[in-house]
Amino acid sequence: MALAYDGAIQNLIDAFAKLPGIGPKGAQRIAFYLLGADDQEAQALADAIQEVKAKVRFCEICGNVCETSPCPICVDPRRDRTVICVVQEPKDVMSIERTREFRGLYHVLGGAINPMANVGPADLRIPQLLERLGSGEVSEVIMALNPNIEGEATTTYISRLLGPLEVKVTRLASGLPVGADLEYADEVTLGRALVGRREA
Amino acid sequence: MALAYDGAIQNLIDAFAKLPGIGPKGAQRIAFYLLGADDQEAQALADAIQEVKAKVRFCEICGNVCETSPCPICVDPRRDRTVICVVQEPKDVMSIERTREFRGLYHVLGGAINPMANVGPADLRIPQLLERLGSGEVSEVIMALNPNIEGEATTTYISRLLGPLEVKVTRLASGLPVGADLEYADEVTLGRALVGRREA
Repeated sequence: MALAYDGAIQNLIDAFAKLPGIGPKGAQRIAFYLLGADDQEAQALADAIQEVKAKVRFCEICGNVCETSPCPICVDPRRDRTVICVVQEPKDVMSIERTREFRGLYHVLGGAINPMANVGPADLRIPQLLERLGSGEVSEVIMALNPNIEGEATTTYISRLLGPLEVKVTRLASGLPVGADLEYADEVTLGRALVGRREA
Repeated sequence: MALAYDGAIQNLIDAFAKLPGIGPKGAQRIAFYLLGADDQEAQALADAIQEVKAKVRFCEICGNVCETSPCPICVDPRRDRTVICVVQEPKDVMSIERTREFRGLYHVLGGAINPMANVGPADLRIPQLLERLGSGEVSEVIMALNPNIEGEATTTYISRLLGPLEVKVTRLASGLPVGADLEYADEVTLGRALVGRREA
């Protein structure tokens, strides 16, 4: 016997080890878990993978993932069509939905400007955003990108691009996370919290 | 839109979150990774899951996982048939194979005695071990269970069971892990290392 498992087991370990956040030991653990699991559970996982690739597409309007295009948010008549929240990835839509603080529409860029990874403005869904703003219906664009270098650069780029248009561009507040400890806050975050202070 | 994803995506997240070592955030990350991956890679993962359930079985002799029963180790004429190494799980076979220090046969118990989890001697492959020893060919049984309470209890139980037979029962050495620091060793491990000291 070689120092690897028989074909099918090793194939499964290798396939899991390719996924983000799973190392070789974790992949082995999962493979043996599936070996011991009943056939139904393993089949359900295989089916779920195939189904998501077969059914899920991107919304032609906002770029979010969905099973019907346009997506349920874009066609929902109860949503406020005058505000668009711009996010990097489809999963950010869910993060904002969970706050229950936003009832407008979304626009998923599909990333952020990152010269190190060869992602420029042309690789993002920026023309689609401009097209949506062309109708004149939108009065505010909320930039909700990640508060890191790439997100900030993209926010600045898009803000300037929208400058000439008659639309207010806002961004998420920077500051201390709720429940955080002042002692452990980094200087930049604490500085932003100070600059952005509000009346108590 | 509800506060969960559309059907297929949520199904996939739920299916991954059931696997050991993957939490809800990790499952979401994997689901979006697969959404972005090319169809071939996702299909390969689904296929690997189905294949492992269809092909992999347990060796009728040693209880290891394999695609042919008896397994390649049990039928290998170059292995030393006078020594059997007893382990808890199939993955432990691979751990010992990787040391390249053992050329005998294996016997997988399928667990260890654990009254808290309702696992008693009757749930383990102990009768099969006794049957293999019945031929008289085996001169040594190496107990290689996990060095924890359940493993120790099982080792003691099986050692006593094999007492009347003409077979030497040994166990893995306890001691300091190679590369470890004396300062951080727990008392029990350090005590065992002292008791089991060898000539330098």
